[in-house]
Amino acid sequence: MTDTASLEQRIGHCFRNPSLLEQALTHSSRLQDNPDAADNQRLEFLGDAVLGLVLAEALYSAFPDEREGYLARARSVLAKGEFLAQLARELELPSHILMSDAERAQEGHLRDAALEDSLEALIGAIYLDTDYPTTRDCLLGWFGDIPARLQRRLTQDNPKGRLQEWSQANGMAQPDYTIVDEAGPGHAKEFHAEVAIAGVPQGAGMGTSKKEAEEAAARVAITKLGV
Amino acid sequence: MTDTASLEQRIGHCFRNPSLLEQALTHSSRLQDNPDAADNQRLEFLGDAVLGLVLAEALYSAFPDEREGYLARARSVLAKGEFLAQLARELELPSHILMSDAERAQEGHLRDAALEDSLEALIGAIYLDTDYPTTRDCLLGWFGDIPARLQRRLTQDNPKGRLQEWSQANGMAQPDYTIVDEAGPGHAKEFHAEVAIAGVPQGAGMGTSKKEAEEAAARVAITKLGV
Repeated sequence: MTDTASLEQRIGHCFRNPSLLEQALTHSSRLQDNPDAADNQRLEFLGDAVLGLVLAEALYSAFPDEREGYLARARSVLAKGEFLAQLARELELPSHILMSDAERAQEGHLRDAALEDSLEALIGAIYLDTDYPTTRDCLLGWFGDIPARLQRRLTQDNPKGRLQEWSQANGMAQPDYTIVDEAGPGHAKEFHAEVAIAGVPQGAGMGTSKKEAEEAAARVAITKLGV
Repeated sequence: MTDTASLEQRIGHCFRNPSLLEQALTHSSRLQDNPDAADNQRLEFLGDAVLGLVLAEALYSAFPDEREGYLARARSVLAKGEFLAQLARELELPSHILMSDAERAQEGHLRDAALEDSLEALIGAIYLDTDYPTTRDCLLGWFGDIPARLQRRLTQDNPKGRLQEWSQANGMAQPDYTIVDEAGPGHAKEFHAEVAIAGVPQGAGMGTSKKEAEEAAARVAITKLGV
């Protein structure tokens, strides 16, 4: 199987017009080496809107009892750049991105911004190659079960909030965070945090900021306590 | 013809499921008088996303040579609340909005926010009642010619910028604005502005701020000069 065929298999769509796929994967830096190429920015604009509708519709159906505010927050979580970049990695897009040699040498194809743009452009390309229902089915295949995906994201996104809600709901004391260690030079500090509930340690974690370290500790506690 | 039938004629869609139309027109204040009614907030969430895709797609096709930045700005102009409220008025929605007696007594059905919400909810309702292509055709009927609509909006939106571009393009001096009068008490000031090009007065206008007065003057000049 060629590279393109295996990519199309992962995406779940075989392009009738392969130049759309190529354009979707073309980072603007490629125009430096290849002035005639069309980059993926216009397709990204279109794909962003397709994604917006697919998510809105899926959330509208999946949560019939939720108000607009919840649906809007849920959509913003699932449309976040960092999450779309993760989705692009799941589809193994990075190795297919076409960019200038200079940009690739700097690992530009691994950056969130480039991955997010390519993913949205890919959505735009599939839409132009097919129609709305086909594109929607294809995207929903990438996302999998939307409520489950959302739940995982919310947990990953705000572990401290989630741990606090859980301890409150169970009549326990608020989680208490301590930075127990701080190491490394100023520009590359590493923080170690611990979280305890009612004096009992529940998790420890580290990160490049206090917040990151505390969130890492909260994630450990969430797993340990079966939140 | 009933009220509903004439509304459907203006909208360009006859609902298979009339309860969707009713829900789209139901302002949240109606729940005070009618606790069992469903308001239009969820439909508005959905309709906003449908509108986003319809506009993105229309702009993508209408401006094949424009970059993403232009398309995004154009879309934000056409999706602005104040503009959607104007569209709602063109469709004569205000008299059909269902709200509490108290809210209606305060003319809530004439407010931009209520009109924008109803219009977006109406789009969501048409989408649920039909499919994407039908909804798109219906919306494009409301908007009319998209580039022409956009041009009119841009002129209305930024008359000073437009007048300046025009005078530059015609090798003339920059428009020069003067506040010639300022009247009324502090909380209800009224400003009078004049615009001149190369010393020749081209328009005068008034407003509740200097900016508003200058924009009004620029609009007069735009009409006078045939910009």
